[in-house]
Amino acid sequence: MNTQEYYLDYFKTRLSRFLDEVKSEPKYLYEPVKYALSAGGKRIRPVLCLMSAEMFGVKAEMAVDAALGLEVFHNFTLLHDDIMDKSDMRRGRPTVHKKWTENIAILSGDLMSLVACRCASKTEINSKAVLDTFLQTAIEICEGQQYDMDFETDDNVTVDDYMKMINLKTAVLLAGSLKIGALIANASQADCENIYEYGRYAGLAFQLQDDLLDTYGDAKVFGKPIGGDIAENKKTFLLINAMNLATGNAKSELLSWLSKEDFDRTEKYNAVKSIYDSMKIKDLTVAKIDECYAIADSYLQKVSLPESQKNVLRSYMDSMRSRNY
Amino acid sequence: MNTQEYYLDYFKTRLSRFLDEVKSEPKYLYEPVKYALSAGGKRIRPVLCLMSAEMFGVKAEMAVDAALGLEVFHNFTLLHDDIMDKSDMRRGRPTVHKKWTENIAILSGDLMSLVACRCASKTEINSKAVLDTFLQTAIEICEGQQYDMDFETDDNVTVDDYMKMINLKTAVLLAGSLKIGALIANASQADCENIYEYGRYAGLAFQLQDDLLDTYGDAKVFGKPIGGDIAENKKTFLLINAMNLATGNAKSELLSWLSKEDFDRTEKYNAVKSIYDSMKIKDLTVAKIDECYAIADSYLQKVSLPESQKNVLRSYMDSMRSRNY
Repeated sequence: MNTQEYYLDYFKTRLSRFLDEVKSEPKYLYEPVKYALSAGGKRIRPVLCLMSAEMFGVKAEMAVDAALGLEVFHNFTLLHDDIMDKSDMRRGRPTVHKKWTENIAILSGDLMSLVACRCASKTEINSKAVLDTFLQTAIEICEGQQYDMDFETDDNVTVDDYMKMINLKTAVLLAGSLKIGALIANASQADCENIYEYGRYAGLAFQLQDDLLDTYGDAKVFGKPIGGDIAENKKTFLLINAMNLATGNAKSELLSWLSKEDFDRTEKYNAVKSIYDSMKIKDLTVAKIDECYAIADSYLQKVSLPESQKNVLRSYMDSMRSRNY
Repeated sequence: MNTQEYYLDYFKTRLSRFLDEVKSEPKYLYEPVKYALSAGGKRIRPVLCLMSAEMFGVKAEMAVDAALGLEVFHNFTLLHDDIMDKSDMRRGRPTVHKKWTENIAILSGDLMSLVACRCASKTEINSKAVLDTFLQTAIEICEGQQYDMDFETDDNVTVDDYMKMINLKTAVLLAGSLKIGALIANASQADCENIYEYGRYAGLAFQLQDDLLDTYGDAKVFGKPIGGDIAENKKTFLLINAMNLATGNAKSELLSWLSKEDFDRTEKYNAVKSIYDSMKIKDLTVAKIDECYAIADSYLQKVSLPESQKNVLRSYMDSMRSRNY
């Protein structure tokens, strides 16, 4: 079995060949594509796809174009989400619409989405099923992003609504990455579905962890400043639960912070966090994360392979789980 | 042989079934899709695809999903182009970003592009070649749109640059529509290439006609107000040639109109048009259109089918050619 570092390196080699082959003209169409894709990141989706393919018995090489499509698509969604969220920075650099213009960001994103489809369509084994899974996942991600935007002006978002949104926006792409690897290895339908569900629950856990780290993470290792979600009243798992559980003074204090237009960021962060603390929101979130990982693992156990063959994937997911970035 | 009205009706029936099946949630994702696709239009691309498929020997039914993909993709490009051009109206109605928001327009466009790929991927015959042609065409359209935007701030656009831009932005999609129909009918490679080139040159003629009508059309029948290109200093075939040919007073008068920030629209239109008239720009454009149609027809002649089987397509293109809208 290969290690997780092997899959990451293998993917990076393919990505850098792809970047070398990107056309140079029109410059303002292709430069942003190169810029967006060379910003780094954990490359989780392609790594999952390659791992899954080898786990089910084919060489990573067979799945590397699909893996590239998944990474290009993911970066397309970040690029357009940054326009919609008016985010100025991504991974320590100006976002595409800030570095160039909004029009350039719209169009180069449109191109990336098509290029991603083209990469996904190159797969030779089970190509129809791979592309169907890819497009279904891509469409669901758009749905998730729309729900996320809807939530900004909706004061009645429930925990169920939230879980449905992160399922679409985040979890299905991790799930789809694993399933695509499995399809390329011609895994059975049951194995494809089980590995998909495994990825989906791990993806939910992954997003909940992101929510948790945004409030409780260590600024030194987290990739962005702590407390962004609190500053923006972002309806995360933490805030939605706090709103449900708060009563009396805690509730009115929380509502008052949410309605403040002018505030000191640190003061708001400390105040809201101490309301969260008083209601054990951190424990509640950790419990939900543990639950999702447990369900995920139950699906991985159903996959009809010797447990030893699942170890690379399991240890990769464990490293994601224990991350503090 | 079926008539052009038959193909249009056949497509409209499929489109309306598609629209009935569009999901209802998330509302702000799917409503704009229905709105954009129900605005009407000539449905040229799907009609060409269906005609080509039957001309080469299969039933329209075999090509109708691909035809739908082509129309959905075309409407996606209009939707995003309208954001980029800040256009408020399209086919007599507010554009999606005006009716809803720019974010909603970005995301529903993203979705349409993916849905278009899904439709194109449904074709069973020659599915790999169909999808490759579809994606290649789609990517080229993004390139064409980028060149078009680049031209806005480029004072050295040549006629060749312009022809290259409209080839990518407009012509390749008509060409691709015909080729996809041919691929679905399992036409020979030579026939696929000849029908593609036919569509490409007809597409160039088609765009040049649009340029001509924007200045010389009849406001009563043209879908939008006459003179928009002149008002906006749009670098069309007419303006680029006028800039090349003008000398002396005509040149300085033209430059002076191009640099005016405040002007009466009718006055500018009449002045620029009379400069065009003095240089016979209309005749020059008509000659170029005739040339493109002649080259187009030379490719159609090479298609290895009895001339009688090409008549529906030829008469459809003739009706496009004699349009004044």
